[in-house]
This record gives sequence, C-alpha cells and structure tokens, in this order.
Amino acid sequence: MSYGMLLSESIILRRKEVLDLDAVEALLTRRSIRKYKQGDVPDSAVKDVLTAAMSAPSAGNQQPWQFIVVRDRQTLVKMTEIHPSAQMLKEAALAIVVCGDLSLEKYKGWWVQDCSAAMENMLLAIHAGGFSSVWLGVYPRQERVEGLRKLFGLPEHVVPLAIAPVGLPGEKKGKENRYAESKVHRDKW
Amino acid sequence: MSYGMLLSESIILRRKEVLDLDAVEALLTRRSIRKYKQGDVPDSAVKDVLTAAMSAPSAGNQQPWQFIVVRDRQTLVKMTEIHPSAQMLKEAALAIVVCGDLSLEKYKGWWVQDCSAAMENMLLAIHAGGFSSVWLGVYPRQERVEGLRKLFGLPEHVVPLAIAPVGLPGEKKGKENRYAESKVHRDKW
Repeated sequence: MSYGMLLSESIILRRKEVLDLDAVEALLTRRSIRKYKQGDVPDSAVKDVLTAAMSAPSAGNQQPWQFIVVRDRQTLVKMTEIHPSAQMLKEAALAIVVCGDLSLEKYKGWWVQDCSAAMENMLLAIHAGGFSSVWLGVYPRQERVEGLRKLFGLPEHVVPLAIAPVGLPGEKKGKENRYAESKVHRDKW
Repeated sequence: MSYGMLLSESIILRRKEVLDLDAVEALLTRRSIRKYKQGDVPDSAVKDVLTAAMSAPSAGNQQPWQFIVVRDRQTLVKMTEIHPSAQMLKEAALAIVVCGDLSLEKYKGWWVQDCSAAMENMLLAIHAGGFSSVWLGVYPRQERVEGLRKLFGLPEHVVPLAIAPVGLPGEKKGKENRYAESKVHRDKW
C-alpha cells in the first residue's frame, strides 16, 4: 500500500523506523498515547488508516460503519467539552470518529462488535504508520452520544461509538507484556 | 517474540512466508477463512495469540476478559450443535472462546468493546502466525450464550462473546480493498 507523500522530516524518520513493523510486534507495542507533539498527519496516512478500519470483519460482511475525519480546530475543541477524557484533542493533528450505521445492519445486535474491530484496526494502523492514538469511548454514554450527534448533525440511525485522536507521539511507552495465565482456561472453566 | 518449536514442515514454510509480515499488510490481508486443512497449531503459537489478545486496549485498562482454549474434539463437536455457523470447528485444530468477565469491569458498559478489540487482535495474530480464523459471533444471541455457558460451566459473571477457530487455511482468499469514500465524512455529517 502507498503511504503517499511524506510531509515532514520527522514523519519520514518515523516511517523509516516503522515501515517494516512486523505485525505481531505492532500488536504488542501499540499503547494508549495521550500526549501529542506538533506535526501534521498527511491525508494519505489517514486514508491508509481508514482502509485498515474498513478491512475489519463484520457480521454478514455488512460493514455497518461510518467515519468522521475532524481536522477543524474549533470542532476538535468543542469535542473536548463533550468528552471529559478528550482534552488531548486540543493538541492532536486530527481525530477520527467511528460511528455505527444501524441502517446498514442486516443482523441486529452486532454493530458494536463490528465497529470495535474497525476501531482496533484503526489504532493498529495509526501505530504502524508512525503515529499514535488512544481509544476514547463514547457509546453507551448517552450524554457523549447526544453531544457528538448534535455537534456533527448525525441522523438518528448513526451512533458515535468511539473517537481516535491522531498525532505524533508526545510521550514514550514501552512494550508491556500483559499475558495472564490465570485468564486462560483449557477445554472448560 | 518467540514462536517456539515449529511442529510440521507446512508450518515452517508458512512461518517463513509470514514471519516478517508487515503490520499494515496483515491488516489488509486478514480474511475470514471457514475451511481448514489437517495440521497442528503448537501451544507456543496459541500463547502468542493470547498475548496479542491481552495487549488490546480496554476501558480503564481493566482487561475484563477470559479465554477458553478448546482442543478436546468432543467439546469442539458439541460447540457446532450450539452455534449454527460453527461447523468448521469439526476441522479446526482448536478454538479460542473470548469471554467478558463482568466482575472485572470497573466502568460498566464497555466490556463488549474491550473484548471485541481483544478478539480482533487475536484474529490478526492468528493470521500473522500463518494460521487462519473467522469471527463466530455468540453474544448477544441468548441461546448461544446459554449453550456455551452450560457446556463450559461458566459462572454467571462470565459471558461468551465470540469464538475464533484456529487452523491451517484450507481455502485461499486474496486481499480485498473495501475502502469506501462514501463512508468518510469531513468535519461534519
């Protein structure tokens, strides 16, 4: 896949580091990053991230998702007034809001899982692209759902699930092995 | 991360193909595989998959998940009687059931998203390891939840969310670009 034109030296350096990031390594080194430093995220990288999101599995392959790419600074600031843990949106280059589209659900009841898989793919693709993010939960908190619905003018059948800020990492977190044998059961509980 | 001892030539060949699978490529080439051919999946690979699962983000980092690794053939066959789309479990080397553990939830209402992220990480790690899988949805279908609860003897606070069969791919599916510009909105709906 093409990474498009790279806009700054720091991005070029980061991409060199991560261009051949092994898939398993990516899964193990993705961390929740809540501080970002100045630096743009090119549209080509955003398209790569959205392509990864839309490659997620979904019930009956119905792909019941919609995405809002937010670069407008005023809108990003307004989002921090709706979501209490979203203050880093003031510094992020952009944010992507993952929404469920209930009108696209053939089988009812699976959209949260489908859109969560798309969200996780997004976080991994952002990390693999040399950028950072964190899962900001929206649904099922009704005040967050309604706040974003009003801010973006979403129709009733579209439910915001989560927000992914995207930016250059402003803090460093190492790999953390969270494997817990106590959570692994064999053939029965 | 270590891939442990490789047990068969076909696995060695597959691992050579995928060992340095680029993270973005893994996201784009993971497909739902429903046919498996004979061949074992070593315990070391299963541990790698579970480690990836447990590296998923979760609300407040509470990691409200539990995993059941099913290798017992009789149990795998019984699962096909509970889940109508799970007939491939008869051929799979094993299956992993991802469960939500409600007793580990500090913030209520997020376990489905947390466990879906873990499930997606699992599917990607299975793919990156040279094996294949498919997301078999369980929750919120009550007859599937109750069937598996009874089969495995799960306590009330543990809810099976999804099943991932694991096996050597018995069908080939290429990369599919599902990017849809119509699902991408800019700053507003």
